[in-house]
Amino acid sequence: MLSKSQINLLKSLQQKKFRLEHGFFLVEGRRSVAEFIGAAYQIQCIYHTPAFDPKVLNLSQKINLCEISVTELEKISSLKTPQDVVAQIRIPEWPLPKQQDLKGKFSLVLDGVQDPGNMGTIIRIADWFGISNIICSDDTVDAYNPKVVQACMGSLARLKVHYTGIPSFLREIDLPKFGALLNGENIYDTDFGLEGLIIMGNEGNGITPEVQQVINKAVTIPRIGGAESLNVGIATALFCSEVSRKSYK
Amino acid sequence: MLSKSQINLLKSLQQKKFRLEHGFFLVEGRRSVAEFIGAAYQIQCIYHTPAFDPKVLNLSQKINLCEISVTELEKISSLKTPQDVVAQIRIPEWPLPKQQDLKGKFSLVLDGVQDPGNMGTIIRIADWFGISNIICSDDTVDAYNPKVVQACMGSLARLKVHYTGIPSFLREIDLPKFGALLNGENIYDTDFGLEGLIIMGNEGNGITPEVQQVINKAVTIPRIGGAESLNVGIATALFCSEVSRKSYK
Repeated sequence: MLSKSQINLLKSLQQKKFRLEHGFFLVEGRRSVAEFIGAAYQIQCIYHTPAFDPKVLNLSQKINLCEISVTELEKISSLKTPQDVVAQIRIPEWPLPKQQDLKGKFSLVLDGVQDPGNMGTIIRIADWFGISNIICSDDTVDAYNPKVVQACMGSLARLKVHYTGIPSFLREIDLPKFGALLNGENIYDTDFGLEGLIIMGNEGNGITPEVQQVINKAVTIPRIGGAESLNVGIATALFCSEVSRKSYK
Repeated sequence: MLSKSQINLLKSLQQKKFRLEHGFFLVEGRRSVAEFIGAAYQIQCIYHTPAFDPKVLNLSQKINLCEISVTELEKISSLKTPQDVVAQIRIPEWPLPKQQDLKGKFSLVLDGVQDPGNMGTIIRIADWFGISNIICSDDTVDAYNPKVVQACMGSLARLKVHYTGIPSFLREIDLPKFGALLNGENIYDTDFGLEGLIIMGNEGNGITPEVQQVINKAVTIPRIGGAESLNVGIATALFCSEVSRKSYK
């Protein structure tokens, strides 16, 4: 059974300021929780209803388990239809990747992506394409936001999301920096080589002028038809696909 | 002012059976409504609040306008935050495209896509890549569903969505038929040529066995990382990008 203050703490993690204050976030549902078992995250506690058998998680490490009532789980859940298991996980403090961590591969840089659904999609795409680092501007939506965690479908467990000031970060990395911009080189003609950073901007305003100044190459997805814009998740997928084509061949 | 029966009719269009019965669907919001002006759709009436000036729509054709109160608009809207204009539009009855309509280009075939958000994303992607026909199985989500129309952001105005039995349709079309399947040819090695049909399946179950039998080529998006699956909207974007690469070069 949970105390009122425990419920309040867990519930408060739906808001960024309390996640920052307490240093935890929540992951809900069997599949997503299972992805975090054995990943590089520290699980504080797994809360589950009597209907959930923790054996299905194949726990080899020692993890705190706490059986709670359906009513209690409903109270701490952010979902309209709560599932039967919620994990409280410590927000990791990855060291910011340096030049040598990013060499020989592609990483994603997000400059002000705002929508939690888009962020979740981007994390899932990065995971599909084997990208292991996403470096975000401080004003990018929080990856530990419950809507993002939900949309990630567990992919968050397999990669590292960092928050920092993007212009100064980019200035310290000596790798090709490809920015998704209008009036750049056609993405289908671009030689991405074998390493670099792919920089995607905000849904409405794109990449900030300050970040544009440290980009080496502006790259554009050309349009044939009439749609005014491509969603940033879709655009990220097309960039990841283009930079990966060679390694698949 | 709207009568109670008018309000009931307009409100009922949120449900498929009433859209089929009455032959109309609703488009909400200035930008989306504007996309349908001058498109190959018959607009029955544009309902707007006093705050909306129909002049912004640049109406050259004669279109029925009907000023209604904010309360009335809230009643007919499917949105949580209703906008100030709603268009009632006739559901088109496009003739099913034949061989000669589909030659020399790529078209999309959807076999059981269920999620309205995915459907909206797919319509927007098709519009971006200049695809003008989407042929859907009868169990694919209705393109005139308010959530689909909302997610399309007006792209629906620029292309034709058809519903039919997919296996018999495919048997009558003599063009390359590329199916998004597991264990197919690597998409990055596939020569798509200059025309054909791209067939995408249901979110959970993929392409039905019956449709698989009439596919010429199974094509797979290879995975490097750990994500279990790619969203069908993302997968559609990657296929559309691959078949378009040549024409952009």
